[in-house]
Amino acid sequence: MKTIDIAIVGLGTVGSGVARILTEQSDRVTRHAGRRLRLTQVVVRDVNKTRDCQLPREIISDQLSRIIGDPDIQVVAQLIGGLEPARTIMFQLLDAGKDIVTANKALLAEHGPELFDHARKLGRSIAFEASVAGGIPIITNIEQCLSANQITSLRGILNGTSNFIVSQMEGGGADYTDAVAEAQERGYAEADPTMDVDGTDAAQKLAILAHLAFGARVRWSEIPKMGIQSLDLADLRFAHELGYRIKLLAVAELTDGGLELHVSPTLVRVGTPLGEVRGAYNAVGIVGDAVGRVFFHGLGAGQMPTASAVMADLIDTAVGRTQLTFRTLELWSQREASVQLCDPDQVPGRFYLRLTADDHPGVLADITGVLAQHQISIASLIQHEVDPAFSTEGVLLVIMTHVVNEGSMNNATRSIQGMDSIRDQIIKMRVVD
Amino acid sequence: MKTIDIAIVGLGTVGSGVARILTEQSDRVTRHAGRRLRLTQVVVRDVNKTRDCQLPREIISDQLSRIIGDPDIQVVAQLIGGLEPARTIMFQLLDAGKDIVTANKALLAEHGPELFDHARKLGRSIAFEASVAGGIPIITNIEQCLSANQITSLRGILNGTSNFIVSQMEGGGADYTDAVAEAQERGYAEADPTMDVDGTDAAQKLAILAHLAFGARVRWSEIPKMGIQSLDLADLRFAHELGYRIKLLAVAELTDGGLELHVSPTLVRVGTPLGEVRGAYNAVGIVGDAVGRVFFHGLGAGQMPTASAVMADLIDTAVGRTQLTFRTLELWSQREASVQLCDPDQVPGRFYLRLTADDHPGVLADITGVLAQHQISIASLIQHEVDPAFSTEGVLLVIMTHVVNEGSMNNATRSIQGMDSIRDQIIKMRVVD
Repeated sequence: MKTIDIAIVGLGTVGSGVARILTEQSDRVTRHAGRRLRLTQVVVRDVNKTRDCQLPREIISDQLSRIIGDPDIQVVAQLIGGLEPARTIMFQLLDAGKDIVTANKALLAEHGPELFDHARKLGRSIAFEASVAGGIPIITNIEQCLSANQITSLRGILNGTSNFIVSQMEGGGADYTDAVAEAQERGYAEADPTMDVDGTDAAQKLAILAHLAFGARVRWSEIPKMGIQSLDLADLRFAHELGYRIKLLAVAELTDGGLELHVSPTLVRVGTPLGEVRGAYNAVGIVGDAVGRVFFHGLGAGQMPTASAVMADLIDTAVGRTQLTFRTLELWSQREASVQLCDPDQVPGRFYLRLTADDHPGVLADITGVLAQHQISIASLIQHEVDPAFSTEGVLLVIMTHVVNEGSMNNATRSIQGMDSIRDQIIKMRVVD
Repeated sequence: MKTIDIAIVGLGTVGSGVARILTEQSDRVTRHAGRRLRLTQVVVRDVNKTRDCQLPREIISDQLSRIIGDPDIQVVAQLIGGLEPARTIMFQLLDAGKDIVTANKALLAEHGPELFDHARKLGRSIAFEASVAGGIPIITNIEQCLSANQITSLRGILNGTSNFIVSQMEGGGADYTDAVAEAQERGYAEADPTMDVDGTDAAQKLAILAHLAFGARVRWSEIPKMGIQSLDLADLRFAHELGYRIKLLAVAELTDGGLELHVSPTLVRVGTPLGEVRGAYNAVGIVGDAVGRVFFHGLGAGQMPTASAVMADLIDTAVGRTQLTFRTLELWSQREASVQLCDPDQVPGRFYLRLTADDHPGVLADITGVLAQHQISIASLIQHEVDPAFSTEGVLLVIMTHVVNEGSMNNATRSIQGMDSIRDQIIKMRVVD
């Protein structure tokens, strides 16, 4: 039986999980890989820190040179987050002739092209299943299992923290601040949850998926994004009344005008696969021209789900599948032409609007008149009777439109916002079925 | 650019779909495979039949020898259904040194061990993504993407015809016969739908998945199965009232006593991923010890979804990934020890019972008394008031139990069935959450 020496850089939550599978489930891994995967070096910043796994003291060090200088180590799981020193370490490992497995989405979203070009030049490979959607093997499914298809649509719930927070608000009526506190208590949110709740994390993952599925060479920071920070319980309740739930949705869709890309809170119909994704789960729905609709659902984060994805990559690389795929697909290649991004104004879609207006005759006629001028057709409308005791607060109006171009929707919204009888900021969200 | 010559045996629905992708989407396939896949031979029974694809007349023949004798053909899509001549053709192709891609689940469920052993002996490979769940890439996901996991549970809706029929009954209140007619009209059911509705098709697919996920060497005909032929609208309505839907579920689960395997109509909770699978869709929910719950959903049949799976295998084989996986996993190897199947009586589960009883004092006390004797605890019970005009028809009782061993449940059911006050056959189904 062949043996492949493996090293790990970074023994945080995910690294410890990978180390545990490699050491505790060694027989299983050998059976599924057809060869033994032996963990021979682990490099950490602080060798004295207590870890979530039992490893022989002598394989742990703070010297990357122990990996770089060991020609027997063929595959390295690079599990440090952030841009630096992760980026430099990746280059050092590639230069030392190692195949790399990583979970670092921010690094790939930012430096994918130079890293992949460098790996190609040296005949090495980079695997990154764990960088998007945790335990859901979405990378391999797009790269390999759906390879006969032109993917035409990809919609994902890619940030489990946000989905947990919104599910808490929806289920228990907690407001945003309380739901964030609950997520932090349960370990689903960081002390500073900004990157999760403002859509940054989802946009970075979408940039990676959009590259794989559509060949889009887009920087994550160019993807229009809106987060869940200002999500109001009122909108969750109205959505429920209309038969929808609100999800932070990452969308990449081919339209006649090019590729539509955005991350935003979106109304998703109850009873559809995406509409039923609750709590800290992630999900990706894909439409391919041959396969039709396929849908993947699983835990998007957490130690062992993410370790499952890293291990799948380690096994694929040990077996040799990763290298074949890597050579075949030329990911993030400078030679590849990028798909055209479409003009956001030309993106067709349905919209949800919530407005607060003065409660006097003619207001609804004025609003619906503006929509009519912009050729926007109303699919449903809610206006509840106002308790006279609160009539000074104005009347709440919720409008759901049929399909319209976003540009027209924005123009109409601006006109309505400018009306004297409209109070507060109009809330506008996308709607998908 | 390298070119790989491909042949197809059998130009039915799926074969025509594969031929269409190979010829009409040749650039895309080349890009995703890193080499050109050229369709050079197609063997059919009747060369004069009109087909659903445009192919040069000269590549179509009824002579298998044109594939066998062409050393340039490296990969063959064998797309004939049934056991013979499919089995003989598979052996001939392997003997001629071809790697094979097939969609024939019945053949694999029946002759997997001899076919795979023969391929191994000759250093060839067999890929079979399209044999289970159509467009859902469940084979690759189990073999490769979840390879770090001990899978502990697999639950699938593997027969789209049955799921369509039950969805029709549920949604529109059609009875079984009408729903079958509707399925036939829409092309979801064969003229003789027996294999689909009696659970045979699902059991064959479950035998393949149980082998991959658990190493179970079980013949499909040994898997306990019940179909949907005698499903009554009354049960769909009661299930709905309890918050469940009925699905033909294929289950493989590791229990303390061994592997539990069966196919049967099962109550699945509304709002869970499996509970929301409607119409002709398939789905598979898997629990792995690292990844947790993952769920896959897509079209389980149809020309292009199945062709998508066959094409993924053709590309994997052209790239070389299939061969690596095939050599690594030793599928259906005689050397591999099989997991122990558990005693059906020892399988724990929840159950749904529907009984028709005489409407007189003491009946409910007698029934619940028998359940108590067998230590069966009741989770919910429905008894609706009977219209006096129909009181001679007896009273309908629906009981949902907490978890109990199937043996105890069967004993209790037999005792209750034997009571004088019980009319008709008691309906018993499993329940999952």
